[in-house]
Amino acid sequence: MRIDIITVLPELLKSPFEASILKRAIEKGLVEVHLHNLRDFSIGNYNQVDDYQFGGGAGMVLMIEPIDNCIAKLKSERNYDEVIYMTPDGDTLNQKMANELSLKGNLIILCGHYKGVDQRVRDRLITREISIGDYVLSGGELAAAVLSDSIIRLIPGVLNNETSALTDTFQDNLLAPPVYTRPSEYKGDKVPNVLLSGNFPKIEQWREEQAYERTEKRRPDLLK
Amino acid sequence: MRIDIITVLPELLKSPFEASILKRAIEKGLVEVHLHNLRDFSIGNYNQVDDYQFGGGAGMVLMIEPIDNCIAKLKSERNYDEVIYMTPDGDTLNQKMANELSLKGNLIILCGHYKGVDQRVRDRLITREISIGDYVLSGGELAAAVLSDSIIRLIPGVLNNETSALTDTFQDNLLAPPVYTRPSEYKGDKVPNVLLSGNFPKIEQWREEQAYERTEKRRPDLLK
Repeated sequence: MRIDIITVLPELLKSPFEASILKRAIEKGLVEVHLHNLRDFSIGNYNQVDDYQFGGGAGMVLMIEPIDNCIAKLKSERNYDEVIYMTPDGDTLNQKMANELSLKGNLIILCGHYKGVDQRVRDRLITREISIGDYVLSGGELAAAVLSDSIIRLIPGVLNNETSALTDTFQDNLLAPPVYTRPSEYKGDKVPNVLLSGNFPKIEQWREEQAYERTEKRRPDLLK
Repeated sequence: MRIDIITVLPELLKSPFEASILKRAIEKGLVEVHLHNLRDFSIGNYNQVDDYQFGGGAGMVLMIEPIDNCIAKLKSERNYDEVIYMTPDGDTLNQKMANELSLKGNLIILCGHYKGVDQRVRDRLITREISIGDYVLSGGELAAAVLSDSIIRLIPGVLNNETSALTDTFQDNLLAPPVYTRPSEYKGDKVPNVLLSGNFPKIEQWREEQAYERTEKRRPDLLK
C-alpha cells in the first residue's frame, strides 16, 4: 500500500509516522507514506495556496489550482484507488470503512486547513470524503494521521500478532472486555478470579459475557 | 488551561504540538501542554510499564502502578478537573463535548497502548473515558492529539478571528456551506453568481440554504 498525503503542514505529520507501529510498518516495507507540501505547488509571485472566500467571511480557503497540479502530478506517476478529502461533513470513519480501505493499493489523502478547500476541488478531484468524527479540528492533518493509522495497522504483518487486531473493539460489533495484568492485587483491588483460574473455556466465556454486558451498557446501538 | 498527557510514546506527539495553531496557542500562553513519559514511572529492574494480560491472549496491557504513580505526582502539584482516558469504548467526542471541555482548567489525558490499560486504572483513577470515533488506533496518542486540538482551538484568542470557530460545522447542528475562492472560473467551473454579487443579505441566505440542504442530504440525523 502507498499513501500520499497532501498538506500545507507536512511538519505537523512528521512524528506520528516516525514512531511505533507506523514506523515499523514503513520500515518493513508494508506501506509507503509520502508527505507532499502543497506550497511546492503554489502559484503566482507570492507562492499562494490559499485566499479569502468569495462572498466574505472569516477564514482562508485552499485554492484549486495548486491542489489540482499536485494531484495531477501524482496521478501521472501511478494509479490511485481513491482521492480522499478529510472533512467533518464527510462519511464518518468506522472500523468497517478502515477494513475496506486497508485492502486498497494507492490512496491520496488531501488535508483541508482553515475554512477548507474550494468546493470545486471536492466536485472535480475528490472520490471520497471522510470525517473522523463530529467535531472540528484546526486542519485535516491529524484526521489524515488517524485515518492512516486505522488503516495501516490492519495490513497483514503490521501488528506482531495478527490475532491482536481481530480481538479489537468493533471488529465483531462488540466492545472489548476488561483486561488485567500484574499485580493480581493492587491496593486491595483484585483481578477477577476466573482470569487466574487457568480454565480457558471459562475465561473465554467470561470475556464474551463481559464484552456483551459492556456493549449493552455503553453502546447499545452497536447491538442493533 | 493546562493539559498533561501521559504516554509511552511522547515522541509521537511532538510534531502536532509544534506546528500551526497549537504551537501559537502555546506560545501565546493560552494553554500549556506537558508530555509525560510513562517509562519515567516504570517499576522493577526491567523498567516495566506493561505486561501480558491475565487469562492469556494477544497484546500487552499497561500496568496500574506506573500510571498511579504518575497521576499521583501530578495531582500533588495541582488540582485537575478531569482525568481522561482515551479509549474506543468511551463516550464519543462531539463538538458539544469539545465546547464543554474548553472551559476547564487542568486536564490529564492518559493514552492507552496495545491492548489498553489494566481495568483497575479505569475503575480507580479515571474520571472520564472518551473515544474519538468507532475505530481502533494503534494507541491513544493520536486520539489525545485530536481531543487536545478540538478543545484548544475553542479557547478565546487561539484562532485569529473568533468568528471563524463560530461558523464551523456542528456549532449550530448544521454542516458548513460550500466555500469558494479565486479564481472565479477554473477550467470552465464557475463560482456561484450570488457569492460575487456583493449582496450580503442574499449571500447569507444562500449560505443558510446550502448548509441546511447539505445537512439534510449528508447528515439528516443532525436535524432531529
